[in-house]
Amino acid sequence: MDVLVIAGSKSDAKIVRSAEKVLEEHNIEYKTEYCSFHREPGRLHQIMEESDARVYICIAGLSAALPGAVAAQTDKPVIGVPVDSKLGGLDALLSIAQMPSGVPVACVGIDNGANAAHLAARILALSQELCQT
Amino acid sequence: MDVLVIAGSKSDAKIVRSAEKVLEEHNIEYKTEYCSFHREPGRLHQIMEESDARVYICIAGLSAALPGAVAAQTDKPVIGVPVDSKLGGLDALLSIAQMPSGVPVACVGIDNGANAAHLAARILALSQELCQT
Amino acid sequence: MDVLVIAGSKSDAKIVRSAEKVLEEHNIEYKTEYCSFHREPGRLHQIMEESDARVYICIAGLSAALPGAVAAQTDKPVIGVPVDSKLGGLDALLSIAQMPSGVPVACVGIDNGANAAHLAARILALSQELCQT
Amino acid sequence: MDVLVIAGSKSDAKIVRSAEKVLEEHNIEYKTEYCSFHREPGRLHQIMEESDARVYICIAGLSAALPGAVAAQTDKPVIGVPVDSKLGGLDALLSIAQMPSGVPVACVGIDNGANAAHLAARILALSQELCQT
Amino acid sequence: MDVLVIAGSKSDAKIVRSAEKVLEEHNIEYKTEYCSFHREPGRLHQIMEESDARVYICIAGLSAALPGAVAAQTDKPVIGVPVDSKLGGLDALLSIAQMPSGVPVACVGIDNGANAAHLAARILALSQELCQT
Amino acid sequence: MDVLVIAGSKSDAKIVRSAEKVLEEHNIEYKTEYCSFHREPGRLHQIMEESDARVYICIAGLSAALPGAVAAQTDKPVIGVPVDSKLGGLDALLSIAQMPSGVPVACVGIDNGANAAHLAARILALSQELCQT
Amino acid sequence: MDVLVIAGSKSDAKIVRSAEKVLEEHNIEYKTEYCSFHREPGRLHQIMEESDARVYICIAGLSAALPGAVAAQTDKPVIGVPVDSKLGGLDALLSIAQMPSGVPVACVGIDNGANAAHLAARILALSQELCQT
Amino acid sequence: MDVLVIAGSKSDAKIVRSAEKVLEEHNIEYKTEYCSFHREPGRLHQIMEESDARVYICIAGLSAALPGAVAAQTDKPVIGVPVDSKLGGLDALLSIAQMPSGVPVACVGIDNGANAAHLAARILALSQELCQT
Repeated sequence: MDVLVIAGSKSDAKIVRSAEKVLEEHNIEYKTEYCSFHREPGRLHQIMEESDARVYICIAGLSAALPGAVAAQTDKPVIGVPVDSKLGGLDALLSIAQMPSGVPVACVGIDNGANAAHLAARILALSQELCQT
Repeated sequence: MDVLVIAGSKSDAKIVRSAEKVLEEHNIEYKTEYCSFHREPGRLHQIMEESDARVYICIAGLSAALPGAVAAQTDKPVIGVPVDSKLGGLDALLSIAQMPSGVPVACVGIDNGANAAHLAARILALSQELCQT
Repeated sequence: MDVLVIAGSKSDAKIVRSAEKVLEEHNIEYKTEYCSFHREPGRLHQIMEESDARVYICIAGLSAALPGAVAAQTDKPVIGVPVDSKLGGLDALLSIAQMPSGVPVACVGIDNGANAAHLAARILALSQELCQT
Repeated sequence: MDVLVIAGSKSDAKIVRSAEKVLEEHNIEYKTEYCSFHREPGRLHQIMEESDARVYICIAGLSAALPGAVAAQTDKPVIGVPVDSKLGGLDALLSIAQMPSGVPVACVGIDNGANAAHLAARILALSQELCQT
Repeated sequence: MDVLVIAGSKSDAKIVRSAEKVLEEHNIEYKTEYCSFHREPGRLHQIMEESDARVYICIAGLSAALPGAVAAQTDKPVIGVPVDSKLGGLDALLSIAQMPSGVPVACVGIDNGANAAHLAARILALSQELCQT
Repeated sequence: MDVLVIAGSKSDAKIVRSAEKVLEEHNIEYKTEYCSFHREPGRLHQIMEESDARVYICIAGLSAALPGAVAAQTDKPVIGVPVDSKLGGLDALLSIAQMPSGVPVACVGIDNGANAAHLAARILALSQELCQT
Repeated sequence: MDVLVIAGSKSDAKIVRSAEKVLEEHNIEYKTEYCSFHREPGRLHQIMEESDARVYICIAGLSAALPGAVAAQTDKPVIGVPVDSKLGGLDALLSIAQMPSGVPVACVGIDNGANAAHLAARILALSQELCQT
Repeated sequence: MDVLVIAGSKSDAKIVRSAEKVLEEHNIEYKTEYCSFHREPGRLHQIMEESDARVYICIAGLSAALPGAVAAQTDKPVIGVPVDSKLGGLDALLSIAQMPSGVPVACVGIDNGANAAHLAARILALSQELCQT
């Protein structure tokens, strides 16, 4: 699979859909899972173990630890989408962007699921282009 | 053991020491580990599996996911100390305080390792008092 | 009694209810008082003098001094819930989290009454478990 | 006495001194107490009971509950000075300014002890002027 | 007259009314003017020259320069009420609270016209009490 | 004269100098005054009455009302430079940028006296160019 | 032409209209283009090459790079209007105000298209006045 | 070439170096250019036209438009590093993260050049891995 979309909460469904639509426009194969890192750490671990995704899009609000937790369990590129749940989404934006050195997350804008998908498309296109060379 | 202190980075050592000093004043048995959730997720998992601590104090800056990750792996009380690394510590404060419902973290003030220890002391004293009744 | 819930204003009723529901799910005995620290300091003092609660949950917005005032009058664990009344609740969050060393308050997320109750449950469960040993 | 200056911590001494200097320039009789509301609530209560001050200047950082606690125990004008201890003093500013309706505190600028004294001088001058009429 | 209430914009009418109601409860004589410092600096100057008010309540949003402008033209106590027009009122709060040393404004909470009136009542009561002595 | 630079405080001298240097590079005739709107409102009024400047550069920190006060007394373009005195200059930035409709101030970056001068140069060059046509 | 109004998105139409109305009141000749710097950098370049506007008003939200991009391609005065799309418009305000030295943008208040037009009117009036001398 | 590092200012050299060191550890071929989008838009355009880089790392402070400008001129992945120049780097963080839909930038933490390089390494490794399949 190309992209695994993981959202921390069913309340993020609208942002998930905005990402999915752009992935579909790019004909990118994807799968979506709803899994809270904080409430289901074991399940997230299992999802990651079984996943063969090339790029991860992680959507989360509040203490948005999901993208960082995924980035800690894979060496593939991880894109984080902060969701506006409180404080206009500033909490999630800082939680996702301010990762410690060594475990990068690619943070996009608040509620901007579309841009996460556009970024995934750029990363995957790079691979395809390189392989054809 | 009563308290396990976990800090995300060696650069948090000063905050760790301020917590340890207060734990010692309260004659609370403790152990300290330096373990980054993002860089050593497997080791954190192992620490948690082997731990018999009654209360956790987790000290972290930036995208301070450590307290939440610990709270997701234990049903014991978890206290989080945000460290001022960037933005005056606002990033860590929001990352620690804004946990989703169901997985609570007790957030204390920025760089306030002492108060984490004081809070642990209150929680442990409650247990001792109740058992004596 | 296990938990005393104190809210600073009748306008916090919805957050109070979210805490109560979780306390009920955990079969935790609780009582709720509405008492403003700023408008009824004498009554708060009296409530605290008569209280035998093991854990306090204090819910307040704006200059949310209630949790700190309670923590100053008891040596039991005090959990503070910042309420979004202005500025997205940032004022209350900082008022509750940034306590001076020596008088700890366990701050949970903005409007997150549920997590205050979950944290109280963890603290009380710790006591029960220890006594059975 | 005209003004009682109360500071929450010895670390506020420099701000206290900037207020005292302006009070002296205005020949205003004053007394200064260091008393933490959170650490010495009983002593603060006693100070307030024995005080005959006409105006209060309360200087505090972090969860700066002192001015509000004083305003709750007197019907005299209370001036609050937020001190920059963390977050540039934003925490103290919001804690002091955002008081609930009914218990007013006159907030001045961060670390601006001088303006607290100037404001006290205006308030006291108003009284003197009115009495002479 | 006891209090002159000045609001920067007709859109502040609701906050003005909350102040007036409390002034009426305290039987304080007041008058209200709508005058923008930025749009009518000459008229504000004239209002100030003709005014014999003992206390000023200035209500303004955005770059809330009105309270400071009034404080610069009188030596009477000036109370500022920041109005939430943009950014939750943070712009007005900082504009009013952060006055330079020498020209104090007593800042109350965002949209808290009631507290401005309560503070005015405390200041005026002090004068009445002192004169009776 | 082309540009009148007005700074609210002697402590702004470094920012003033950075503006003056750029004005000199552009061979723009200028004069500099230090005048606090809050402390010397009458003198500011007089400066404005006597001034024949075509563009104003106003430099101020904290409750930076100076640019707005100048914009209220002239119909010439007014450029405001927020100075970092507290809160990283966010207070001054918001005080200068958030002017009410009808009285515009051209806000440049925090401590960026150079850009105020560059902007003045663009405005003056426009006039020269148009007149030559 | 006197003024070219450029807006980054059709969703800014309301702010655009508030600017246009004031330009019309001042009898200023203007033209409006909708062009996203990020999505249509080539088209923006072309618009700038063909433009003979004397003043630019650029309206943009989020990472509001449009005003700076225009200022980089012209030596005419550029006015930027931050639009509230997320975070109350703080993101756009900082993106527009914090330009590097050498490339100035005149930032007005959040959503304040009217003030951009008023500022443009002041700049253009200056030119007309000077030419008549 | 694999990675083109572009920094907006010589003052970003330390952050540039932290990125370069990590690129070298990963044996990633890179080149570094110092080019300000705002001051040298033409040169940036030329750099982009001549570049065959697979991934871009753009380092900028203040109104950090550089990453977005690069993302607008390429369809390769663009990583942005906000630099703390003012306001703790919050201005640059928001300028980089809050890109409009369609033109994604992968934002990493404030001053975190290392993570930009780690993210680039993940993206490039993905390509290599896919081609070998």
